[in-house]
Amino acid sequence: MATLWGSRYAQRNLSMGRSIIRELLRMTTESDLISFAGGLPAPELFPLERCQEAACRVLSEYGAMALQYGPTEGFLPLRQFICDRMQRYGIGAQPANVVITNGSQQALDLIGKLLVNPGDRILIEEPTYLGALQAWNAYQAEYAPVPIDDDGLCTELLEPALRTGPKFMYVLPNFQNPAGTTLSQERRYDVVRLSNKYGIPIVEDDPYGALRFEGKHMPPLVALDAEYQKKTGLNGHAFLEGNVIYLGTFSKTLAPGLRLGWVVAPVEVVDKLVMVKQGTDLHTSNLTQALAYEVAKDGFLEEHIREIRQLYAERRDIMLDALERYFPEGCSWTRPEGGLFLWARVPAPLDTTELLPDAVAHRVAYVPGSAFYVEQKRGAATMRLNFSNAQPDQIVEGCRRLGNLLKEKLPRDHIITVPLPVGEVG
Amino acid sequence: MATLWGSRYAQRNLSMGRSIIRELLRMTTESDLISFAGGLPAPELFPLERCQEAACRVLSEYGAMALQYGPTEGFLPLRQFICDRMQRYGIGAQPANVVITNGSQQALDLIGKLLVNPGDRILIEEPTYLGALQAWNAYQAEYAPVPIDDDGLCTELLEPALRTGPKFMYVLPNFQNPAGTTLSQERRYDVVRLSNKYGIPIVEDDPYGALRFEGKHMPPLVALDAEYQKKTGLNGHAFLEGNVIYLGTFSKTLAPGLRLGWVVAPVEVVDKLVMVKQGTDLHTSNLTQALAYEVAKDGFLEEHIREIRQLYAERRDIMLDALERYFPEGCSWTRPEGGLFLWARVPAPLDTTELLPDAVAHRVAYVPGSAFYVEQKRGAATMRLNFSNAQPDQIVEGCRRLGNLLKEKLPRDHIITVPLPVGEVG
Repeated sequence: MATLWGSRYAQRNLSMGRSIIRELLRMTTESDLISFAGGLPAPELFPLERCQEAACRVLSEYGAMALQYGPTEGFLPLRQFICDRMQRYGIGAQPANVVITNGSQQALDLIGKLLVNPGDRILIEEPTYLGALQAWNAYQAEYAPVPIDDDGLCTELLEPALRTGPKFMYVLPNFQNPAGTTLSQERRYDVVRLSNKYGIPIVEDDPYGALRFEGKHMPPLVALDAEYQKKTGLNGHAFLEGNVIYLGTFSKTLAPGLRLGWVVAPVEVVDKLVMVKQGTDLHTSNLTQALAYEVAKDGFLEEHIREIRQLYAERRDIMLDALERYFPEGCSWTRPEGGLFLWARVPAPLDTTELLPDAVAHRVAYVPGSAFYVEQKRGAATMRLNFSNAQPDQIVEGCRRLGNLLKEKLPRDHIITVPLPVGEVG
Repeated sequence: MATLWGSRYAQRNLSMGRSIIRELLRMTTESDLISFAGGLPAPELFPLERCQEAACRVLSEYGAMALQYGPTEGFLPLRQFICDRMQRYGIGAQPANVVITNGSQQALDLIGKLLVNPGDRILIEEPTYLGALQAWNAYQAEYAPVPIDDDGLCTELLEPALRTGPKFMYVLPNFQNPAGTTLSQERRYDVVRLSNKYGIPIVEDDPYGALRFEGKHMPPLVALDAEYQKKTGLNGHAFLEGNVIYLGTFSKTLAPGLRLGWVVAPVEVVDKLVMVKQGTDLHTSNLTQALAYEVAKDGFLEEHIREIRQLYAERRDIMLDALERYFPEGCSWTRPEGGLFLWARVPAPLDTTELLPDAVAHRVAYVPGSAFYVEQKRGAATMRLNFSNAQPDQIVEGCRRLGNLLKEKLPRDHIITVPLPVGEVG
């Protein structure tokens, strides 16, 4: 007999099942499998010794505080540290603008809980971060997808979607997950202008912004929006009374196992988010917050990020070379200037979801692109490849295996006759 | 001008505002205030040295794992440890029955997300844990309150409430928050029998069960339900296919700042909860999980709990004596056999919410009982008093101040003419 619970689940969209990514992560513990699937940082760069020193310092100097209940909004020195760090990106936040979360994923959940009624539409990039869809499906969100190309969100296609009255726009401007693309400077201005024109606020998710390998840093939307408010005199009296909620994380710059992210928002929104978080889990671990602060402070984080950038840039280059060498004609891929992922397109009629079991049989894994679309029939000929986690020789070998598989599966008469669309990522 | 966010909040019940408890916790950082308000463990018992050793061991022996992404259901050795520990309470869980959460509060949130549709009714004890109401208000739950007395939930009043078809019952059987009462053995059987009779499952919240100072341990509902299933042949083939979701936590036995709790449930429910947690925050910090495991193992936790019990029992006795000595005639209070709280009743027409500012002016704080009722007009003459956090001399002095205030505020002609209701906690 089944339990009494079976018939009692809420009418939420839990139909997506467990994330393909998570299931793949399970698989990737098998050591002979080369995985480009997860979004895992390179563990060899985790600052283990510094963490150990920091843990000892926290527990010996203010252990009773770190182990006791704490404020919902987070550990003040860490929130101050985050403000100081964001200042260099032009974000003028005060600690009152910052809430600490259990990674960015919790920020997405809290935003859903605070803002989304069943049937509310969220404007998203297509493809977009799968975890955001999972977070918001639980609140029965609907989506208004707008395509991206090599310059990020196609702002020329934004207005019709904005006119449908979405609750907010969800934008990943830097080295987007999954596509690795970056929103161009010009389009950033467009996004902010259109946000204000249509009165549709923005959730800016920036997990990878600090991991730029090359090219010019571009200002975050939250800073451009503040500038816009000032110029237009809409909101001149204080910084961060604007229309952007900005999400940051230590998962890619320090360690994901700490589960530490943050939200920057107008005080009004922060107050609400704190209330929501309180009912959700009271607060984030004081111990991990204090540890992160002690590790990051005194310039360590900056120095550490420099190392990460260097390593990931090398691995990206190795992957780009290997793709060039081993992938069959007719494939294309993005060339990210930072982050953890690139996005590859294979010739139709290949379907990356159908190919995955074969790939795994050849001991190499990726995430099928369709996972990042609301309509999972789309993106059939695309895949996300992670370059941060695998060793250089594995990257080469994995691309070789994948390339051979693609060649094997291509129809014999496969000839490239149509020029590939340039730019369009989907 | 306000931001664009102002008009965009979801139609959820966020009207409760920040929890009174949390606001009071803020106040209690003022060092001259004696607080019986929070539910804070005694920080002098936090095992700081052992935590420090454990942190070093985790980071030096398996640091890369602790700092990397991990499985949503939690760190396996900790889940195994929890199963071993719960075995002694008659709970036959396997790791597949366990999900690690960010404290019990997150378990309440995940349960709400998984089970509660807007307007769904939850059967609760009255008074009950405020945090549960906060968690479930976000999913627009309604409530079917059933009173408690000195023997816990009044099971003779349970059937009419069960007939209204609540989604589940929420029960705190041991040293209940806020009342400090314990569900009697006989009533435990009643609850399980009625749960099965009416087909209404149970969420059993047991944060304090291990902190019994005296009296006989009583079996948890989850164990009695498993026994019941077996006897009636409803569910004979495996343990934990029953109708109870059990919630445990390390917050009261180790340290709340770690934010570690757990759910024990049938595998079917665990699978769903894991899916929900994945979209909520991916997983709980590996580092704190590994740390808790290394601290707790090899018998340390048991030994440590013995110390906690001894200290809290002393403090409870000191508070009971001080109440006897300083509170005016006409007051009554519960005599908890464990846990962190007792519940006092003052003579009408005194109103503990109205009295609170005066109490704080006299530098002593408590939580007004009305906070623990759905209808906040109820419980006006009650208060929750915490005895775990304050030092013995503070407990005496705080009760003296509170007693003097009550005497001062009582109407001059206050004479006890009516015998006080025996048992009824509200």
